[in-house]
Amino acid sequence: MSLSKNIEEIDMQPEKRGTQKTYRKPLLRQFSPLMVAMVGLPGRGKSILAKRLERYMNYTGDITKVYDISEYRRKHMEKYASHEMFKADNLPAWRIRIQSFREALEDAAAWLSEPGNKVAILDGPNVSRSQREEIYDLVYTQLGFRVMFIECVCEDPMMLERNFKEILIYSVDYRGMATEEALKDLSLKMAHYKAQYVSPSLGSEWELPCPVVKVLDGGEGGVIAHGVNGVKESKILAYISTPRPFQQTLYFSRHGESEYNVIGKIGGNASLSPRGQKYAEALAKHIKALNLPSLQVWTSTLERTKATSAGIKAPQLHLSELDEIYSGECESLTYEELQDLFPKELALRDHEKLKYRYPQGESYLDVMRRLVPVLMQLETESNVLVVSHQAVLRCILAYFLETPLEEVPYMHVPLHTIIKVTLWGYNYNIETIKMPIDCVDTNRSKPINCSLNRTAEDALKTVPVHFDNVDELIHTLEAI
Amino acid sequence: MSLSKNIEEIDMQPEKRGTQKTYRKPLLRQFSPLMVAMVGLPGRGKSILAKRLERYMNYTGDITKVYDISEYRRKHMEKYASHEMFKADNLPAWRIRIQSFREALEDAAAWLSEPGNKVAILDGPNVSRSQREEIYDLVYTQLGFRVMFIECVCEDPMMLERNFKEILIYSVDYRGMATEEALKDLSLKMAHYKAQYVSPSLGSEWELPCPVVKVLDGGEGGVIAHGVNGVKESKILAYISTPRPFQQTLYFSRHGESEYNVIGKIGGNASLSPRGQKYAEALAKHIKALNLPSLQVWTSTLERTKATSAGIKAPQLHLSELDEIYSGECESLTYEELQDLFPKELALRDHEKLKYRYPQGESYLDVMRRLVPVLMQLETESNVLVVSHQAVLRCILAYFLETPLEEVPYMHVPLHTIIKVTLWGYNYNIETIKMPIDCVDTNRSKPINCSLNRTAEDALKTVPVHFDNVDELIHTLEAI
Repeated sequence: MSLSKNIEEIDMQPEKRGTQKTYRKPLLRQFSPLMVAMVGLPGRGKSILAKRLERYMNYTGDITKVYDISEYRRKHMEKYASHEMFKADNLPAWRIRIQSFREALEDAAAWLSEPGNKVAILDGPNVSRSQREEIYDLVYTQLGFRVMFIECVCEDPMMLERNFKEILIYSVDYRGMATEEALKDLSLKMAHYKAQYVSPSLGSEWELPCPVVKVLDGGEGGVIAHGVNGVKESKILAYISTPRPFQQTLYFSRHGESEYNVIGKIGGNASLSPRGQKYAEALAKHIKALNLPSLQVWTSTLERTKATSAGIKAPQLHLSELDEIYSGECESLTYEELQDLFPKELALRDHEKLKYRYPQGESYLDVMRRLVPVLMQLETESNVLVVSHQAVLRCILAYFLETPLEEVPYMHVPLHTIIKVTLWGYNYNIETIKMPIDCVDTNRSKPINCSLNRTAEDALKTVPVHFDNVDELIHTLEAI
Repeated sequence: MSLSKNIEEIDMQPEKRGTQKTYRKPLLRQFSPLMVAMVGLPGRGKSILAKRLERYMNYTGDITKVYDISEYRRKHMEKYASHEMFKADNLPAWRIRIQSFREALEDAAAWLSEPGNKVAILDGPNVSRSQREEIYDLVYTQLGFRVMFIECVCEDPMMLERNFKEILIYSVDYRGMATEEALKDLSLKMAHYKAQYVSPSLGSEWELPCPVVKVLDGGEGGVIAHGVNGVKESKILAYISTPRPFQQTLYFSRHGESEYNVIGKIGGNASLSPRGQKYAEALAKHIKALNLPSLQVWTSTLERTKATSAGIKAPQLHLSELDEIYSGECESLTYEELQDLFPKELALRDHEKLKYRYPQGESYLDVMRRLVPVLMQLETESNVLVVSHQAVLRCILAYFLETPLEEVPYMHVPLHTIIKVTLWGYNYNIETIKMPIDCVDTNRSKPINCSLNRTAEDALKTVPVHFDNVDELIHTLEAI
């Protein structure tokens, strides 16, 4: 400990930093960007929390980026050797670690200084008080921004064991190492960090005058927060106070083909087509065969989703948040009718589909906003089947898959397809199961010509094939 | 203690409740209504926190109502006699208190069962474990709703003294009682409660399986949260984790009269008129004379607010959240032009001004939503002067004054007027200071005829008088 103290004294002077930058300090700090620094030993759930927080903040409009100190460390070392790297008296390794810490910190600070960026998350152990003081000094004092610490504390042996296993599976450092050896190395690495670990103090001993939140046992043990003040900090506290599962599978489906789908109409509250009805039966059969424990079904309040899930034996919840994007004055029109009656609206929509709002209706951004409470609840659940609609499922999947905003309105979410989303490490995996029941395609890709004065032909070029009326489909089915 | 325990055993059996109701239990609890029960000794800041939470939740769309147990108690007692009322062995008084508790609880539960209502706050000491179990039993088990406890703990002697003084000023119980006598009575009342007080336990001793948040020293000492799970609970935690001042004065002003105001145009980014410029000078002089410590000025990003505050010596922040309601395709039009070009839009707006959204523009509800982060910050500040716009100030004042939603778009916020808002007890007081500088009136009240086929005359009946062009005003001023 005394040696490590000496190293800190020599090495951690801010003036020794490689890249001294000058920053324009904001006059008032209230609405400044925020640096969140994670604190805690390895295997305490810092990285998954940082990742989840990043996903949530970005989706809800605060542009956020994680800076992972261990990735900087890896740039300086060809391959991870062993726990020796983390010993307090290993001076050359210490230099690499402190250099990595500073590079990550400075990159995060520089990124935060760019207009529009709101929250940088510095993911790493940050176990020493002097490291935290250095973060505070640069970000709070020099830049005039805001700083918040999130400490992950975990004493639950079961949870620790699970976290360690996850590290062995997902960490680059242990790739290719035998499990037993890796586990031993990880324990020693942990012991080195423990020797250097000073937990940020709260209450009258408050270490630094900025918010500190301690998350106990991944949230299962609750949170202790001190000094939270500021809109983004409160929002973050609300998010991280909820425990979330480490194993999670969610299922999504659009309703079965509706009578409106068959004839190419948007919106409305139509019934299922005969083929849509078949899909409902196939879906119920498929889900039953999975035999999912504690299965729940969440649908919209519209007829076509309720009919689709009707045969599934599980508690069902009907939420208006899951209703299809509301197209206002354009409800129940075909694209051909839309082009005929509202050519300007259709062109505006094609030009910027994400932000475009139907007259007296909604935009994709509106749908994303109204979905946030449902997504927050969904993120804490497993074995939920959500039966909803094309635009809504695009917005929901975009959350889990972190789809770039501008791509959301063009995501491919076909009818008669079950989508399975599974948490894998820090990210979500997606699998699709196409049911062998014919249906129309409702995906209209972005036309090349989105100008206000385009021809009807140009506007309608990407409209998918549909029937003129439902009887036509029924005749076709009878003819088979 | 043992006597009070006996009383509880006799009296607190749920089957002894006066009004046994049957409730329809929801199938899934995730999105059910929420009962928040306050816990804590008198003078710990429960009621102001409950009141603030109610204001915030209502503004942000979760319909919320406080049920104050002491108001029920007062219905059963003609006049508050003394602390004897709160002694554990005062059986007749105990019966009144437990009856009041149950009436408040049942009224809150009944209200929560009505469609649309989201959060009921049961404000009272709820110091005993059996009371909390009764809340849980009724609301969680019988109704299938959600329950959350917020305990206010305060040990800071300065804060306690301040809270006691506030009780003596604002509490109905002590109205007309001499200060010394009241203070003595309050101390004894406190002692009686202390003897019955069992703090809800957390961690492995967790009292009831629902969220508990302990707010320490009004938030100044941080918060400890356990079991927070659910969208509304997280939102509440975020709100209550921030300490807020007990004395607070905020100032508001619209920009000085603009050139657009003079000629009756809406929106845009015009400069100040000569009279608006005079107001800017008068405002700076007035604010300077107040000599406010740590004064800050927050304006919109538009020219007219920045010009209005330019002469004030204080740090200035320019926030786009404070920009005027965006009228999209109707920007920079007069009402006469609006009626000419978009008669249907003007009628729709007059019909439902709160929800009406200008084509490609905003509604009042949109403005309220974008203001929430600014309001959250503003609520923690004092001596801020906000220079903004008519619609935006309506939405801001509506927060502090708890204006019913439908009245918000018609609130009277005239030009050349300083509005002072001061926290008084649990509510805000408003004072207006009209500056003696002439200006146009921009307030257009709701026309009687809001139908789509009304005449132009009917549509324009309430348009306030304005000049045809700015030169006309300048000539008028020169002629004086």
